[in-house]
Amino acid sequence: MPANLLGQRLTLQSWGESHGSAIGGVLDGLPPNMVLDIAAVQSALDKRKPGSSKFVTQRREDDTIEFLSGLYEGKTTGHPLAFIIANKDARSKDYDAIAQKFRPAHADWSWQEKYGIRDPRGGGRSSARETAIRVAAGAVALQVLHHLLGPAVEVWGALVELGGDAADGQSADLYKPHESPFFCHDKQAVQRWEKALEATRKDNSSLGAIVEVRARGIPAGLGEPVYDRLDADLAKALISINAVKGVEIGAGFSAARLRGEENADEMRTSNSGVQFLSNNAGGILGGISTGAEIVARFALKPTSSLPRTLRSVQQDGKNAEVLTKGRHDPCVGIRAVPIGEAMMSLVLADHLLRHRGQVGNLGGALASVEEESP
Amino acid sequence: MPANLLGQRLTLQSWGESHGSAIGGVLDGLPPNMVLDIAAVQSALDKRKPGSSKFVTQRREDDTIEFLSGLYEGKTTGHPLAFIIANKDARSKDYDAIAQKFRPAHADWSWQEKYGIRDPRGGGRSSARETAIRVAAGAVALQVLHHLLGPAVEVWGALVELGGDAADGQSADLYKPHESPFFCHDKQAVQRWEKALEATRKDNSSLGAIVEVRARGIPAGLGEPVYDRLDADLAKALISINAVKGVEIGAGFSAARLRGEENADEMRTSNSGVQFLSNNAGGILGGISTGAEIVARFALKPTSSLPRTLRSVQQDGKNAEVLTKGRHDPCVGIRAVPIGEAMMSLVLADHLLRHRGQVGNLGGALASVEEESP
Amino acid sequence: MPANLLGQRLTLQSWGESHGSAIGGVLDGLPPNMVLDIAAVQSALDKRKPGSSKFVTQRREDDTIEFLSGLYEGKTTGHPLAFIIANKDARSKDYDAIAQKFRPAHADWSWQEKYGIRDPRGGGRSSARETAIRVAAGAVALQVLHHLLGPAVEVWGALVELGGDAADGQSADLYKPHESPFFCHDKQAVQRWEKALEATRKDNSSLGAIVEVRARGIPAGLGEPVYDRLDADLAKALISINAVKGVEIGAGFSAARLRGEENADEMRTSNSGVQFLSNNAGGILGGISTGAEIVARFALKPTSSLPRTLRSVQQDGKNAEVLTKGRHDPCVGIRAVPIGEAMMSLVLADHLLRHRGQVGNLGGALASVEEESP
Amino acid sequence: MPANLLGQRLTLQSWGESHGSAIGGVLDGLPPNMVLDIAAVQSALDKRKPGSSKFVTQRREDDTIEFLSGLYEGKTTGHPLAFIIANKDARSKDYDAIAQKFRPAHADWSWQEKYGIRDPRGGGRSSARETAIRVAAGAVALQVLHHLLGPAVEVWGALVELGGDAADGQSADLYKPHESPFFCHDKQAVQRWEKALEATRKDNSSLGAIVEVRARGIPAGLGEPVYDRLDADLAKALISINAVKGVEIGAGFSAARLRGEENADEMRTSNSGVQFLSNNAGGILGGISTGAEIVARFALKPTSSLPRTLRSVQQDGKNAEVLTKGRHDPCVGIRAVPIGEAMMSLVLADHLLRHRGQVGNLGGALASVEEESP
Repeated sequence: MPANLLGQRLTLQSWGESHGSAIGGVLDGLPPNMVLDIAAVQSALDKRKPGSSKFVTQRREDDTIEFLSGLYEGKTTGHPLAFIIANKDARSKDYDAIAQKFRPAHADWSWQEKYGIRDPRGGGRSSARETAIRVAAGAVALQVLHHLLGPAVEVWGALVELGGDAADGQSADLYKPHESPFFCHDKQAVQRWEKALEATRKDNSSLGAIVEVRARGIPAGLGEPVYDRLDADLAKALISINAVKGVEIGAGFSAARLRGEENADEMRTSNSGVQFLSNNAGGILGGISTGAEIVARFALKPTSSLPRTLRSVQQDGKNAEVLTKGRHDPCVGIRAVPIGEAMMSLVLADHLLRHRGQVGNLGGALASVEEESP
Repeated sequence: MPANLLGQRLTLQSWGESHGSAIGGVLDGLPPNMVLDIAAVQSALDKRKPGSSKFVTQRREDDTIEFLSGLYEGKTTGHPLAFIIANKDARSKDYDAIAQKFRPAHADWSWQEKYGIRDPRGGGRSSARETAIRVAAGAVALQVLHHLLGPAVEVWGALVELGGDAADGQSADLYKPHESPFFCHDKQAVQRWEKALEATRKDNSSLGAIVEVRARGIPAGLGEPVYDRLDADLAKALISINAVKGVEIGAGFSAARLRGEENADEMRTSNSGVQFLSNNAGGILGGISTGAEIVARFALKPTSSLPRTLRSVQQDGKNAEVLTKGRHDPCVGIRAVPIGEAMMSLVLADHLLRHRGQVGNLGGALASVEEESP
Repeated sequence: MPANLLGQRLTLQSWGESHGSAIGGVLDGLPPNMVLDIAAVQSALDKRKPGSSKFVTQRREDDTIEFLSGLYEGKTTGHPLAFIIANKDARSKDYDAIAQKFRPAHADWSWQEKYGIRDPRGGGRSSARETAIRVAAGAVALQVLHHLLGPAVEVWGALVELGGDAADGQSADLYKPHESPFFCHDKQAVQRWEKALEATRKDNSSLGAIVEVRARGIPAGLGEPVYDRLDADLAKALISINAVKGVEIGAGFSAARLRGEENADEMRTSNSGVQFLSNNAGGILGGISTGAEIVARFALKPTSSLPRTLRSVQQDGKNAEVLTKGRHDPCVGIRAVPIGEAMMSLVLADHLLRHRGQVGNLGGALASVEEESP
Repeated sequence: MPANLLGQRLTLQSWGESHGSAIGGVLDGLPPNMVLDIAAVQSALDKRKPGSSKFVTQRREDDTIEFLSGLYEGKTTGHPLAFIIANKDARSKDYDAIAQKFRPAHADWSWQEKYGIRDPRGGGRSSARETAIRVAAGAVALQVLHHLLGPAVEVWGALVELGGDAADGQSADLYKPHESPFFCHDKQAVQRWEKALEATRKDNSSLGAIVEVRARGIPAGLGEPVYDRLDADLAKALISINAVKGVEIGAGFSAARLRGEENADEMRTSNSGVQFLSNNAGGILGGISTGAEIVARFALKPTSSLPRTLRSVQQDGKNAEVLTKGRHDPCVGIRAVPIGEAMMSLVLADHLLRHRGQVGNLGGALASVEEESP
């Protein structure tokens, strides 16, 4: 399996560098005869797009997607769906000064050590620019979920913590967050975050964040233990996003502090089938979806590109001071929300096709949750 | 790729159920001409073995491993190394009562919904019994690391939190924990944990835990961005362990609360090469090892099998009360330590072979860390 | 993907050496809830078994299969089906003399050059003993085809040429060959072959053969162009059988000598759907099954182990004369018939699951053929 | 693994349809720091290009390749190398008449049955247009072989039979065939073939062909038994080329008519190492290269697109007569020569990286052959 390929049966191969002429992706294994809603894909890209608010990088990219194959009269043919996004606002001169220096907390050092070569222009292949490919592919994967499971499937993310300041998890609106530039409907939190980001920027610093992603309407039955568990593939997909340092499912690390009877999501029969009395499992037990809401969270470190002098070394082994200019997000976590949604959609759609191959159509039940976990 | 296969070039396929006649594994892709230290493999299995203290399940298994192929005169031939471990103390009658009921927090419900069939004897394939295969394979993988990188490579885990009570991270001894049945050298913590477990058992409850795994002596250069990053594959491997609900690398979730300049591990030239002034990255940047110590942590939920009545449903859809008898660990986190080590070794050895294929022998530098992260 | 793994969604991993304690296999991805007919698997093994006539190796093996996992109450659980076959009649002393010499036309030289080590006992991993695993797995795969496509599916092979002497392709009985020890119902041919083999044995020589394998009842739609075509995966599977040097589909090499209008299988509507007026395509067009009978042939070189002195070299680089004693088939092609059937079944079942994953249940039509190709 | 992906460690993913805006490919896993000779890639494409003689399709395409990623200052970075070739001369109107009819011997029927949709414009994804991607990727793979094994490696093909008329295999020049538009240096054969093709074209018919591909300078040691044998992967790659119905290695089907002592390639020590006294094995024994020349042949059926009325059926199930207009090759075998070379290079380069991963640098010996097989 190539290193730039995600999934087994619905696969995404991604290619391209920050300052090349374009980036692109290839989705293979799509169900045939599916009408592709290209506008929905473009709309997902627009959410992730740089320059959409003052708190994300000011690089200006249209991020207009072009589909090059795999479609006939607007429908998928079952053959590879190739797409491409042009790089228009690549200013390589911004980066010339650091071509010989390893920026702390960046991929520079480890990539140079591995490959003996690296493309320093905008971080090359290690740039978060690549995540546009994930978002486009994830939007297609969501359409696969709708195509096979119906329109009730929802996959959405929210920014739930920024710089250590958590949003109010009790807000019923918290998890319909998409109109907000912060992907969060806790208005108080958003106001605090805006101030914090403003101050951080002035201070030439940056902040980390925690993002939550949820999927509703996914029946029980997705996941392939013992290694290709649904949670394992989700964790891999989420931690493969730039700057992510941790991932958890359901109660996650908090589960390690619960007692057995607190953690166990008890079950009852309800009018509409099985009801879980809680959802500490985050919708996954034994590596397979339970029919309850699937809940994952991931932690992003603060943006590593700082307009601040940091100690480092250079390619010739000598000590150096590095100051990263260029256009960067003060908190990469914000734009990570649509990326997290995309990864969730890709993993679910891949596992849906995998399940159908082994077992047949997904007949597993949906389950309700008595007290929705916040 | 089969669902029960881990890795790409050094691959482990695992098979077997808790109460079948045996469990087994197949390691393919091993470097040829490597002397296999079978005693070291058996020794790793003995660490994980049930019944080794009163705080782990009292099921009695020798866990004696038998190698069936892939060796000639004690050396690997480059062909599949198959091994088998007999199940001797499988008491299926303990489980007959719950064959029709879904145990909360167990795989019962989701597996039944997926496959339409499940082996209820001891949890069948979802049992933690399968982890013995991981431990055996991990011990072989560690030998691959030694064979190719030299004897200085170390991979070891420690129990760093039990029931919400953390060990003292400052103890220099903390990270040489193997003589202790708790895999932890903070003697005060161990004493507190013993008491807590004793009380928990009397209370028919269970506790969760956090395990840390570290690898030393791994040069810069392992990992294959953008999807098969070293951290992504580690996260997948660790979260695939039974009961794990979260995983983090280096500073992990705490990194989301640091400022950019705090999180960035600055670098300096030292006598022995590059030195990182901190290791928030946990030895991985941009998905590739940096040469510094690799650090991962994972959270385990409390044992789900409780001698306590919980509300659930049965296979016919009716409500039921479930009380799980049988022999179980009050904290599955304890035995997870050698399993976590095994997963780390397997992922590193696989990536070492992958790197050698693409780039050649791993020439990346080792890096020191000024202040060892606790 | 490991080198000893066949398939993508129904996968077979094989392990074991000729003179180890056992050989075995792991089938992963099986549909759950399928009753496994173990007697049918054993029966397939008995067909391939050494010692079943005087024209195959006189090594005596029961070839009794034992299933170790993946079954509950006689049904598949969707988890790995592991099985094992003991090696009982391994006489390693027969091979000691040639441990230092490379037998011509054997794997000895190339394997030694690759791995720097080889197990000389009975050819180690390169022995045709491994094919017992294929036959067992193929018999399970055939049950998958029956389970999902109905009992009308047939997969069977025939010996159609031995030592350059072809069976009569016009015989209607030719393709129901299984009661014959030669897997061929052309009684004249069998009589000629028996004489030829007897003479060949006396002459310390050996003969090659051509085997044909056919599958009936496979609807249109299996295969995944452009690389994982059904014919491409079949060719790989068949040529991976020991001693096979060529493979062809339908008219095969003869198609290169036809004119376009002769080769093109014209189509007409018939009462039962589409009818092909010929089947030069061998049931596969554009890499996908057409619904007509699938036809493949493969050529086996004469047995390489000869009780005859041949010129060779030894491990130390010096010239040597090699005379291979031991118990061998005068024509390995005979036992290759059930192996070819097994490979066909494995490839078809894997592609059936792959198709179901991407497209859903296989709805493609069956097609008849006006003049059955002989 | 996606269906449009070839290889394991050096992987090619291909996308695009005959009449889309472009076709393209992604090569992942390339060794870093390799200077890419783009002109050599373009030159390989020019050899396969339509319109280069009157005996190949008169579609006019520049087939100018553009590299979009994976390069920095002319060298590979170890990240995906994406490339694209525009479709400029796609005349979809030529094909409108047959959109509802299944052309005999084409992919139309089986693809429609599988996917329930097909792109009829120029055959869509089933068109041989896709093979341009293979040729481009193969030219890069050949550079990988040169990069790692030295400039002595040669991979080249020849047309050895056309319409049943074989070239003279004794001609010493036969196997340096590239200056000829027929990829064959037997001038008498070429003259006969030209006449035959001219007559065939006038007769609205087409001819098949046999192509031979050879690789020199490949040391012993490539291939991964028991399933991923070098010959098995070669066979899969070659038979995946459009119109190929058979493949053989070394003596191939003829080996089935040899006696054991005739077929066995005896060995002697020579000044330069091991010498095989013949090469019936075609350079592969036990699935691993022997160091002798690697020889494969594949058979192509006659071009299926004929300006001749053939009986067929239409999408609504009724009988129909089909007459395929458009621009087609009278013998697709001619253009298959560079495609066969490309597939050979891709398989060898992939196995070279795979070998290096498991075993280290390829140290296997080259072997000479006393009597070069014709």
